[in-house]
Amino acid sequence: MVTASICTIGDEILIGQIVDTNSAKIATALNAIGVKVEELVSTSDSGEAIVDTLERCLHSTDIVIVTGGLGPTKDDITKSTLAKLTGAGGFVENKEQYRIIEQLLTARGVEMSDINKAQALVPDSCTVIINECGTAPCMQFEIERNGSKRLLFSLPGVPFEAEAAIPKVLKAIKSHFELNTIFHRTICTFGIPESTLSKQIEPWEDNLPDNVHLAYLPNPILGVRLRLSIYGVEKELGEKILQEETVKLRAIIGNAIYGEGEDSLQAAIGRLLKRENETISTAESCTGGMIASLITSIPGASEYFYGGVVSYDNSVKINTLKVDANTILQHGAVSKECVEEMALGVRSLMGTTYSIATSGIAGPDGGSEEKPVGTVWVAVAGEGFVESKQFRFRGSRKLNIDRFSSNALNFMRCEIEKHKKRLTY
Amino acid sequence: MVTASICTIGDEILIGQIVDTNSAKIATALNAIGVKVEELVSTSDSGEAIVDTLERCLHSTDIVIVTGGLGPTKDDITKSTLAKLTGAGGFVENKEQYRIIEQLLTARGVEMSDINKAQALVPDSCTVIINECGTAPCMQFEIERNGSKRLLFSLPGVPFEAEAAIPKVLKAIKSHFELNTIFHRTICTFGIPESTLSKQIEPWEDNLPDNVHLAYLPNPILGVRLRLSIYGVEKELGEKILQEETVKLRAIIGNAIYGEGEDSLQAAIGRLLKRENETISTAESCTGGMIASLITSIPGASEYFYGGVVSYDNSVKINTLKVDANTILQHGAVSKECVEEMALGVRSLMGTTYSIATSGIAGPDGGSEEKPVGTVWVAVAGEGFVESKQFRFRGSRKLNIDRFSSNALNFMRCEIEKHKKRLTY
Repeated sequence: MVTASICTIGDEILIGQIVDTNSAKIATALNAIGVKVEELVSTSDSGEAIVDTLERCLHSTDIVIVTGGLGPTKDDITKSTLAKLTGAGGFVENKEQYRIIEQLLTARGVEMSDINKAQALVPDSCTVIINECGTAPCMQFEIERNGSKRLLFSLPGVPFEAEAAIPKVLKAIKSHFELNTIFHRTICTFGIPESTLSKQIEPWEDNLPDNVHLAYLPNPILGVRLRLSIYGVEKELGEKILQEETVKLRAIIGNAIYGEGEDSLQAAIGRLLKRENETISTAESCTGGMIASLITSIPGASEYFYGGVVSYDNSVKINTLKVDANTILQHGAVSKECVEEMALGVRSLMGTTYSIATSGIAGPDGGSEEKPVGTVWVAVAGEGFVESKQFRFRGSRKLNIDRFSSNALNFMRCEIEKHKKRLTY
Repeated sequence: MVTASICTIGDEILIGQIVDTNSAKIATALNAIGVKVEELVSTSDSGEAIVDTLERCLHSTDIVIVTGGLGPTKDDITKSTLAKLTGAGGFVENKEQYRIIEQLLTARGVEMSDINKAQALVPDSCTVIINECGTAPCMQFEIERNGSKRLLFSLPGVPFEAEAAIPKVLKAIKSHFELNTIFHRTICTFGIPESTLSKQIEPWEDNLPDNVHLAYLPNPILGVRLRLSIYGVEKELGEKILQEETVKLRAIIGNAIYGEGEDSLQAAIGRLLKRENETISTAESCTGGMIASLITSIPGASEYFYGGVVSYDNSVKINTLKVDANTILQHGAVSKECVEEMALGVRSLMGTTYSIATSGIAGPDGGSEEKPVGTVWVAVAGEGFVESKQFRFRGSRKLNIDRFSSNALNFMRCEIEKHKKRLTY
């Protein structure tokens, strides 16, 4: 299997000032064409560190992709280090990149300095990949290491410049190596904790074909996503096998599956609603607008989301949502009774098909023995029904709010599905 | 200087499915106590790859921090690999972590399985750092490599669990190594773009003492934060110098500074309001609840935040916020007129001291030549005034919503401050 490593150069990453997002983008692209990424590594702007890291990567993988270290102030080190490493005889000016540098600077109203001119110089050991979006040219080197031919690419660190270079890098890789195939399929589940899920699907997992690999990706907002990867088969066969395994998995955990790939609960709810031109509204206390915010993060949410009320203070619950003041007096705001009245109240206020309401204690203060921090009541109302459920979590304020919101959305998804089934019978 | 490397374990990072955010957080924390991070590396879930990477890091740095690979499922082999690497004689159960696993599962209504029980087992070569927020215990190992004592930490990959462990890791590092002194002070600014800001404060920056270093940390939600670091002086003197420099900076950019350290615009607004027992409400269209969600992310927000209306559909603007239907007909929902009526409407509905409203086009669709995607109107209302402002940005839906929200909050902060000044004269 053709292997790769991705190296990021820059002190700003080592001091935590910048999160490296280039590597994930490049890794995704390489995986998609069947290149196995074995290591991501970030190293400092020092010549010694760059050589050590690159030599190590060149020793162990067929392809090495370097990002960063090509800015106008730092490129002396990276470029001269690459020249030495690849046995260059000297530097030559790349006319096309020179022209692009000139154009970019003119557009910004900046005059071309010697530093800018130097950016068009490249080691004579490289093939230039023109950088259309920035001043630093991308470079491709062919080197012999460990008895094999290696490909080394040097890309700019600026994310959109690196991203723009990826297709050209993939093309070069495809023309140099015979690639195996690899396919992934990610199945999104919610509502079953990771350990319970793994027990539930153990028989299925144990019977997966040898060339299929399963990974668990747990996340408090997205639930547990299951990623199936299949190696070394043709696209059609690979997709057929992954489809068969998905069907088997669905037979075991059925309703816990809400989508695939980059899906989200709010997108799944959106699809459910759009099918029959239905609408929703929200009434949030402890989640403070987070549920509305998640719903409206989906493009086109205005087709089914009318709006919501954040009823943080009890006066808003009573005056705007028409919750009975006695309900709050008798049962408290964090109660089945209150949250159901909130759901009914917002549904009637906004005239939507469904509504969702939350009331709970996110913390750090406000808990009691009976209703500790982390307690939340969720209600969903629709034509002729209102259903509610209590959840309990333990975590920071932020994490509690995240979990309240995602569990509320999942509860809503399940209640809408149940309601639609009832209607069909 | 004490050095460290940070290793992330997990195929999900190598295939680009997840962006590693843990490493940047850990790197920031290590830098803050004077530890130099020399390498960040991500490797696969295979035993061989883990051993190779860890041995290499242990060879070259004093501290190695490993994240990931500690989940309860089958793809996690980190623990047994660490046991072998550190010469453990066997596994022992950690009673405290066992108790926490039990509590967490009970809270979720899940029964404890053998898989869960196994999570409380740790190699006898480690010191356990209890994980309060999750089931997998953190581990600390002392190992001899290259003739020196090394510290190896193993933390969970789940971001909030890793983050919660950082203070304990720092404490252990401080008690094992003599660290150089380094102090930081972060000044939070909003409203001046990075390049303009850097030009404006250039004379100040050029005159900073030699041992003071300035870093720019730009962020669409937090604004541009300026981090001053001072090296190699006693705490008292260091803090005095940073204080003097902060005063000079304040004289230049004054009102753009909203706080220090881990501050946020919503926390700054909260402080302003609490001083005189004032209250706020929100009316959001394009920001879809994000502003309410940011305000309620602050513990104790219930003291000053009454609630809000997410008026996504025009019917909600008209029926709940009492915006005149003719205003929308004449000027559109994204207009000075509409957003001012929204602010006035929610203020009167909820009876708060101030209110804020937003109406704009987050995209990707819905833009026009006159009002392109990225346009937003923001209004702030208070006793006897309503002020509004238009902003224009260019970015994805998510980035637009983030920027709309943070710029709206900053506008509100400035308007409240202005209003308070008017009252004093």
